[in-house]
Amino acid sequence: MMRIKYAVVGTGALGGFYGGMLAHAGYDVHFLFHSDYDFVCKNGLKIDSVSGNFHLHNINAYHNTDQMPKCDVVLVCLKTTNNEVLKKILPPLLHSKTCVIMVQNGLNIEADLAASFPSLSIAGAMAFICSNKIGDGHIAHLDYGKITIGSFQGENKELLSQVCNDFIASNVPAEFSDNLKESRWQKLVWNIPYNGLCVVLNTTTEKLMIYPETYELVRDLMLEVIGGAKACGVQIDEGLVQVMLDSTGTMEPYAPSMKLDFDYKRPLEIGAIYSAPLAEASSKGFDMPKVKMLEQQLQFIQDSYSE
Amino acid sequence: MMRIKYAVVGTGALGGFYGGMLAHAGYDVHFLFHSDYDFVCKNGLKIDSVSGNFHLHNINAYHNTDQMPKCDVVLVCLKTTNNEVLKKILPPLLHSKTCVIMVQNGLNIEADLAASFPSLSIAGAMAFICSNKIGDGHIAHLDYGKITIGSFQGENKELLSQVCNDFIASNVPAEFSDNLKESRWQKLVWNIPYNGLCVVLNTTTEKLMIYPETYELVRDLMLEVIGGAKACGVQIDEGLVQVMLDSTGTMEPYAPSMKLDFDYKRPLEIGAIYSAPLAEASSKGFDMPKVKMLEQQLQFIQDSYSE
Repeated sequence: MMRIKYAVVGTGALGGFYGGMLAHAGYDVHFLFHSDYDFVCKNGLKIDSVSGNFHLHNINAYHNTDQMPKCDVVLVCLKTTNNEVLKKILPPLLHSKTCVIMVQNGLNIEADLAASFPSLSIAGAMAFICSNKIGDGHIAHLDYGKITIGSFQGENKELLSQVCNDFIASNVPAEFSDNLKESRWQKLVWNIPYNGLCVVLNTTTEKLMIYPETYELVRDLMLEVIGGAKACGVQIDEGLVQVMLDSTGTMEPYAPSMKLDFDYKRPLEIGAIYSAPLAEASSKGFDMPKVKMLEQQLQFIQDSYSE
Repeated sequence: MMRIKYAVVGTGALGGFYGGMLAHAGYDVHFLFHSDYDFVCKNGLKIDSVSGNFHLHNINAYHNTDQMPKCDVVLVCLKTTNNEVLKKILPPLLHSKTCVIMVQNGLNIEADLAASFPSLSIAGAMAFICSNKIGDGHIAHLDYGKITIGSFQGENKELLSQVCNDFIASNVPAEFSDNLKESRWQKLVWNIPYNGLCVVLNTTTEKLMIYPETYELVRDLMLEVIGGAKACGVQIDEGLVQVMLDSTGTMEPYAPSMKLDFDYKRPLEIGAIYSAPLAEASSKGFDMPKVKMLEQQLQFIQDSYSE
């Protein structure tokens, strides 16, 4: 079994945690930093985690990918709204067998990357985690943490299984998904209602679950997403709705990532989480009117930022 | 032709303007005041109107209906959220032929009143007006002003035509509608999108028209309402949508009444404007998913007032 050389592109709430856990366990990880680069060179990367705090003093930190080694696995942990930079920054990291794992929410992310890199080996991953970047080189991991990884075109299953094993050996729950598209739609069943409604109604998942009309609205949205998935050939059991409602109702009050983006007036991931699934379902003749309305409201909110 | 004795129940933005215009023209009008009663007894009622300011120094002001004369026509200008008080306060105003005109937005308002007063003659009216109460006994009339009046069960057409003529003689554009239900649905085509979205997105009609996604969403909502009307037996030409979009786009920036209620944390008229049309369309097997979502979001916002 080879020793995987990892690159983390986008060392924020997700990349800092997942890459940090791998590095802390002794794996070979190379981190791309943006605004925190100077700080991390001096002070290292600090992870405050529910499963134990640690501080990585000697970290392979880089400010641009030209200086980084070619890696076997690249974990892309950017926001999807920044994916246009990948065309420029990925090439220095790639050898002929590099696998790029898109650790992002939404749909069609891998297909978009494949359009720019037709011969690249691509995978996707979904992070089920509450973590925030709370300062320069400082990540707070609040809850959960599981990562689900699947291949885009079916290749590289062995490598991706090893990545899962590396995560597990680093104390991160990880699972290989045989059906990436299904896993992505499943995560959308949660992301579409909670991310959008927390922004539009300026609230938390907990409050959405307390009031009967938003509880019903979340359920309506989840059922629309399951209908959209079905139109796109992905079967999701409707029983998942009640499981998600119940588990979200008992979660600690939690601001989803899009709510944090909204609070900090950062771009919202509307394209990957709303527009892409709406377009795919619509191409199969299936409308999701309430999901569409949420997309329209979110776009208005983002358009109004500058006012 | 008889001289009509008018009562105004709820002398606020609407009742103050419409009753004030009639009184100013010399008609016999009796006003019920709530919190402004003492102020108005001393200082009268002041109307600042785009068509000319005036001050009614000697006004028939009352603090409760027990002291009021029986009237021929009662203009109910309360918010629909206060309609439960009518059961108690209307009876002193009624003789055997009194007609009660509900000057309110929404649907099924007349039917609700008829349930409490089965033998009462009832009519409905819609005010197309921008007016606000800006202080004790002080109304600002900013724009428009037309009132459309229709009979609930088809009776009293002659009396209602005379009411229209009294308004016209008082410099208020007025129109008798032969089809109250159609007029109510037509007004909902405007009220449902603009009232709700201005609250949920905390914005103005002008901004909704500037951004393409809310322009599209307003249109989507209007088309749903027209579909709901059709299911309920009311034909509305879809051409009305473009007419309303165009005229709202060129209106002065305007906060609809529900937005003002929201800003002052007053109850929102969700029942009459959203729940009633949703229930009626649904009883005919027609869903309005985006209207429903707006109702759910508004209810959440109102439920969260106390926090």
